Amino acid sequence: MFDFANSLPADTLPAAGPWTGFPAYNFVGGHNDEALIPVDELTDCMLAVMAADGKRLATYGLGDGPLGYSGLRQFLAGSLKSRAGMHVDTEEILLLSGSLQALDLVNQTLLRAGDTVVIEESNYGGVYTRFNRLDVSFVGVPTDSHGMRVDALEQVLSELRQKGTMPRYIYTIPTVQNPTGSVMPEDRRRGLLALAREFDVPVFEDDCYADLTFDGKRPPALHALDEDGRVIYCGSFSKTVAPALRVGYLVAKQDFLARAVSYKTDAGSGALEQLVLAEFCVRQFDSHVKKLSAHLAGKADLICAAFDKYFGASADYARPMGGIFIWVKLPSAIDTTRLAEVAGAQGVAINPGVEWSSASDASQHMRLCFGYPNAATIDEGVKRLAEICQAEFGLPAQIGNK
Amino acid sequence: MFDFANSLPADTLPAAGPWTGFPAYNFVGGHNDEALIPVDELTDCMLAVMAADGKRLATYGLGDGPLGYSGLRQFLAGSLKSRAGMHVDTEEILLLSGSLQALDLVNQTLLRAGDTVVIEESNYGGVYTRFNRLDVSFVGVPTDSHGMRVDALEQVLSELRQKGTMPRYIYTIPTVQNPTGSVMPEDRRRGLLALAREFDVPVFEDDCYADLTFDGKRPPALHALDEDGRVIYCGSFSKTVAPALRVGYLVAKQDFLARAVSYKTDAGSGALEQLVLAEFCVRQFDSHVKKLSAHLAGKADLICAAFDKYFGASADYARPMGGIFIWVKLPSAIDTTRLAEVAGAQGVAINPGVEWSSASDASQHMRLCFGYPNAATIDEGVKRLAEICQAEFGLPAQIGNK
Repeated sequence: MFDFANSLPADTLPAAGPWTGFPAYNFVGGHNDEALIPVDELTDCMLAVMAADGKRLATYGLGDGPLGYSGLRQFLAGSLKSRAGMHVDTEEILLLSGSLQALDLVNQTLLRAGDTVVIEESNYGGVYTRFNRLDVSFVGVPTDSHGMRVDALEQVLSELRQKGTMPRYIYTIPTVQNPTGSVMPEDRRRGLLALAREFDVPVFEDDCYADLTFDGKRPPALHALDEDGRVIYCGSFSKTVAPALRVGYLVAKQDFLARAVSYKTDAGSGALEQLVLAEFCVRQFDSHVKKLSAHLAGKADLICAAFDKYFGASADYARPMGGIFIWVKLPSAIDTTRLAEVAGAQGVAINPGVEWSSASDASQHMRLCFGYPNAATIDEGVKRLAEICQAEFGLPAQIGNK
Repeated sequence: MFDFANSLPADTLPAAGPWTGFPAYNFVGGHNDEALIPVDELTDCMLAVMAADGKRLATYGLGDGPLGYSGLRQFLAGSLKSRAGMHVDTEEILLLSGSLQALDLVNQTLLRAGDTVVIEESNYGGVYTRFNRLDVSFVGVPTDSHGMRVDALEQVLSELRQKGTMPRYIYTIPTVQNPTGSVMPEDRRRGLLALAREFDVPVFEDDCYADLTFDGKRPPALHALDEDGRVIYCGSFSKTVAPALRVGYLVAKQDFLARAVSYKTDAGSGALEQLVLAEFCVRQFDSHVKKLSAHLAGKADLICAAFDKYFGASADYARPMGGIFIWVKLPSAIDTTRLAEVAGAQGVAINPGVEWSSASDASQHMRLCFGYPNAATIDEGVKRLAEICQAEFGLPAQIGNK
């Protein structure tokens, strides 16, 4: 038999492990609650769009060119204005196969090996993976309960300038930060933009969770406050409608967007999903998101209550202001990488902090997603996690009423 | 305003031009005939899959893991056996966002800057683009009416060996070759595989058009004849069902596939399109493809007749054995790059040969796709092309009965 191992480049990634299905207590991945998928409504939309536009599936991109289905771009232009305060033209929106494609296209356009970017100290795991693969350095900016600290950002940018390093961009998730769940207030957003202007650095704003704030409010996007076209923006429908629908979007001034489009060599993103989403969103995006956010707020309360109950003082967290995850800090004796390993073997899946943060105390942190498990699973899962943690590290000393 | 031009790496691709819609006579791109999109049947399938599996959209990849929806992989395992003679397990199939993602994943896994690959001398334009971006060299193997010439392949492989160059793979489109439209007979397939074994090179078989042979017959896939697991295989539903549905697949032994999966960092391909396709294909893939192929055979006749009528002896071509394109050779006085430019400005879009071939006479060739335009447009488009060619190059000397 031919052995591919002999013909692979030295730096090829390791093989992926076999798929073994979801663990019983699945606190990883941005999955949603099955009960919150608007199945009937989506089905109605399919009937409508197939009757109206089904034949357009004959042409790549529905004949609307590389930016994607114009109907969905029109919805977005309106929605981004009313929800995030952004004023964008439909020609400034590029529809993608999920917002992860936005990361890839922006990186292909702007980054080369040896470059440096500035990011929040704790951040989405997938960005670290990408920077590592591209051989790009990142400098983490400490965060607080209001997101990226502007004073710390200024220090980072000054230090980089002193070293003669021009960062390629500042990557930030200002609204429902991943993993901390914070929302950056407007004045800090303005401070961040002032620094970006002072140091003449582009900003890459990831707003994937921004429609899911629990109080239904959000500050204007950085993109909305930007006066000089330096903010590149991405968003997604995965968190708001259905994760398995792979539709995201990149928003930027045309001088940047036209460059990024050149790297999109996939002959278009899935048109059926774009068509269905456009119809659904025009009909009921706002009402659906309101319902979903209320549901997620309830789940956030549940997981906070479970941590209070089973971990007690051993778990330190801030209740997330939106979204689907909670960032929990454990005592210094606990290594969450080890905890994730042991818990994973017992059917409780969590994200260890070191995969989600470059902070010095990353190994004390863990991220748990609460969108997918139901109430009983959340409670039982956190209880089991506490028991496993106690057995492995002796903490929490007491679990619940035991 | 911030000027991105100042912060782009030196080698960033040029900006894409603005989208101006389809030309009146569109002979480029793999679009299909609107009349051949099974709109009602697809709609019926949507109703069925949403009722059965709609809630599964709550989980990335429908909870079936990174290989994609198991229902579609099961259909493919059966279909690849009955249609192409392949014996593959569902765990050897990776569903993708179109077959172009297969090219990208295989290239990311196997190729690094400075590497060399072996390909047919005339080939799909997108592979050249990809190799150039990756700084990978390619050696073109001359083809004849039966596809890649095995004697020429042996010479290429021998010369590379003498130079100490180990090609990373042999890329081939053996069934309905793009752009020549030929089908490689089984004995030549065996000869190609024997050489691949002798020189110990992997083979990458692109079978995107293989379901569209006009006589409904096809030899076994290289993958089916391969005894030592060196063939990586890709296919697509874009040509057989609808281009705007972005679903393709990569088939390989698990030692390779598990590596390629590691590079698929898009959180899954579009699940709705996978679900609908699975239902549609189980119900009527074979009957649909039979109908579509007959329709395309008729269009192939139409475009051949149009060339005979308007270009006469100035156009040399082989009637394609399947698919949606024809590869036409013009007299040496004609430069198809210039022709494409002039014709494009007058609403007739064609692929110039140099974008589709590395052969010495590439600039005399052009590729015309005939899947999208209707009969009248095909006739009128080729007529206009002849007139434009005559005005620019003096050939054909006589057009039609004029």
